[in-house]
Amino acid sequence: MVDVVSILKENSQVVIDSIDENLSIIVPEELSDASKYLTKAGGKMLRPSLTLITSEAVGGNKSSTVQTAAAIELIHTFSLIHDDIMDKDDMRRGKPSVHKVWGEPLAILAGDTLFSKAFEMIITSKGENLNFEQINKTLATVADSCVKICEGQASDMSFEGDFTVKEDAYLDMIFKKTGALIATATKSGAIMGGADEEVINAMYDYGKLIGLAFQIQDDYLDVVSDEESLGKPIGSDIAEGKMTLMVVKALDKADDDDSERLIEILKNTNSTQDKVDEAINIFKKYGTIQYAHDVAQLNVNKAKEILKILPDSEAKTSLSLIADFVLNRKS
Amino acid sequence: MVDVVSILKENSQVVIDSIDENLSIIVPEELSDASKYLTKAGGKMLRPSLTLITSEAVGGNKSSTVQTAAAIELIHTFSLIHDDIMDKDDMRRGKPSVHKVWGEPLAILAGDTLFSKAFEMIITSKGENLNFEQINKTLATVADSCVKICEGQASDMSFEGDFTVKEDAYLDMIFKKTGALIATATKSGAIMGGADEEVINAMYDYGKLIGLAFQIQDDYLDVVSDEESLGKPIGSDIAEGKMTLMVVKALDKADDDDSERLIEILKNTNSTQDKVDEAINIFKKYGTIQYAHDVAQLNVNKAKEILKILPDSEAKTSLSLIADFVLNRKS
Repeated sequence: MVDVVSILKENSQVVIDSIDENLSIIVPEELSDASKYLTKAGGKMLRPSLTLITSEAVGGNKSSTVQTAAAIELIHTFSLIHDDIMDKDDMRRGKPSVHKVWGEPLAILAGDTLFSKAFEMIITSKGENLNFEQINKTLATVADSCVKICEGQASDMSFEGDFTVKEDAYLDMIFKKTGALIATATKSGAIMGGADEEVINAMYDYGKLIGLAFQIQDDYLDVVSDEESLGKPIGSDIAEGKMTLMVVKALDKADDDDSERLIEILKNTNSTQDKVDEAINIFKKYGTIQYAHDVAQLNVNKAKEILKILPDSEAKTSLSLIADFVLNRKS
Repeated sequence: MVDVVSILKENSQVVIDSIDENLSIIVPEELSDASKYLTKAGGKMLRPSLTLITSEAVGGNKSSTVQTAAAIELIHTFSLIHDDIMDKDDMRRGKPSVHKVWGEPLAILAGDTLFSKAFEMIITSKGENLNFEQINKTLATVADSCVKICEGQASDMSFEGDFTVKEDAYLDMIFKKTGALIATATKSGAIMGGADEEVINAMYDYGKLIGLAFQIQDDYLDVVSDEESLGKPIGSDIAEGKMTLMVVKALDKADDDDSERLIEILKNTNSTQDKVDEAINIFKKYGTIQYAHDVAQLNVNKAKEILKILPDSEAKTSLSLIADFVLNRKS
């Protein structure tokens, strides 16, 4: 199997350079450092790589897409910083989160700065054959995904402790929280690469599908992976009482006793491994682990089907490999 | 004297309607309510009115500028919501601040939502003779002012307890924190109204000058106004140890004894009225209250001088009256 991690890495160096250049001019220095911190902590760079590869796949010029790709990574980073404050998550990418290092006020501000810079970087994009209409269209999908990220995070917070959430509402939440920005990443690549409307819309759908699969697979890995690959204990989502597709589906299908038992375990945010295993057994009894995997697989299949609209190229192959990678990764 | 408050009010109804329309479609409802809350709390609507009036003054069409004007008010509101969290200010516009009503997580998110919506509203602006280049130019100045707002707030926080701050650094901070968005409000009006480059730049300078005067006058009123007009005790900035132009200038001019005494009072955030009066007397001794007023007046004079570039019109007269209002207001 071709190493997708190296495809992402290969594409992301120009993005890292662009981010560094744009964030280094921020003053005071403390704000610049807090804004740069997470972007230097070594994320997968999935979103900006998707933007660049999509642009290439539609025949675009990489250099006019770099600032947009970098901007999308900044939007992602901004949302991580603010989410970590809201969710009181003290670790991110194996390091203390921004608010743990600089305090909440500067962390809020670092997020706001990344957000502002992201728009500025798209607005000031330059390149051959690049026109204001393309930039405007890209900005429209980026702003739309930002609204959705906020709506998704608000829904996610409102779902906490609510065990009546149905599958549709759950899928809508993860689409907004995770899928929308990945869809925007690929759509922006298509727009900046000069694709026509049909291809632009197709690439949005491709991104949306792999984004959803990505999130569902994250939850799936939490119960089927091994502790070493995952870097955290198996079933930690259950221990934290997190809502996942497996939970939503189990609560929909389970009898009253099993439902009650599952809710009890999820409500107790200090569950022992025994209880976590009991919850996993309830998932298994109602086939919801397999169900989650099937939904993710279906989304990936559909995403790859969509790629047929593109002419054959190395970039197209990369997009297909990335779709598979969403399911094949171990962490 | 013509009532500037009614000029602002007259212009702002379309803005309020546009904001309401754009924020009502946000889901979940709680996020929509938290986002709308402050915009309904009755601000002066100075910034969006300036955008609309400037657009009119350069011969533009009001209807194509409304979304931009509304967006600028949203950016202002976003920054108030986040600043109140950072500064732990529990009241705003005479009501509990957003984080007091909905908690910090939803307040952070409400700010982020307003920010996202603001960009979306400018991007989707429609109107006769409006082209993508104008929208792009407007977005560029708005994004630039957002970066500056973040930088200004970070500087402001870093200045806390630092009594070595010089006048230039202080003025740069208030320009970024307050002046930049007002400058962007007038510049955006000029761009969307179809003005040429010279007029666009002139209107940025007009906004910057009245923005600076506005902030300096705020600080000045804190020591010379009366408690009833101000709605808070005289000298409350001193009691809170806030940095103002009067403080910066006094520390620059005062002898060692007076400097030490002033710093002592400012460091004690529970100063009695006696101590506050002592600080005001130090300002008076070194003429820094008069100095602050003179700087504000000079900025207003320059701002009005700039308006000469515009053809005579009712809108131009309004801009001149607003410049005077910055100094003539009592609160």
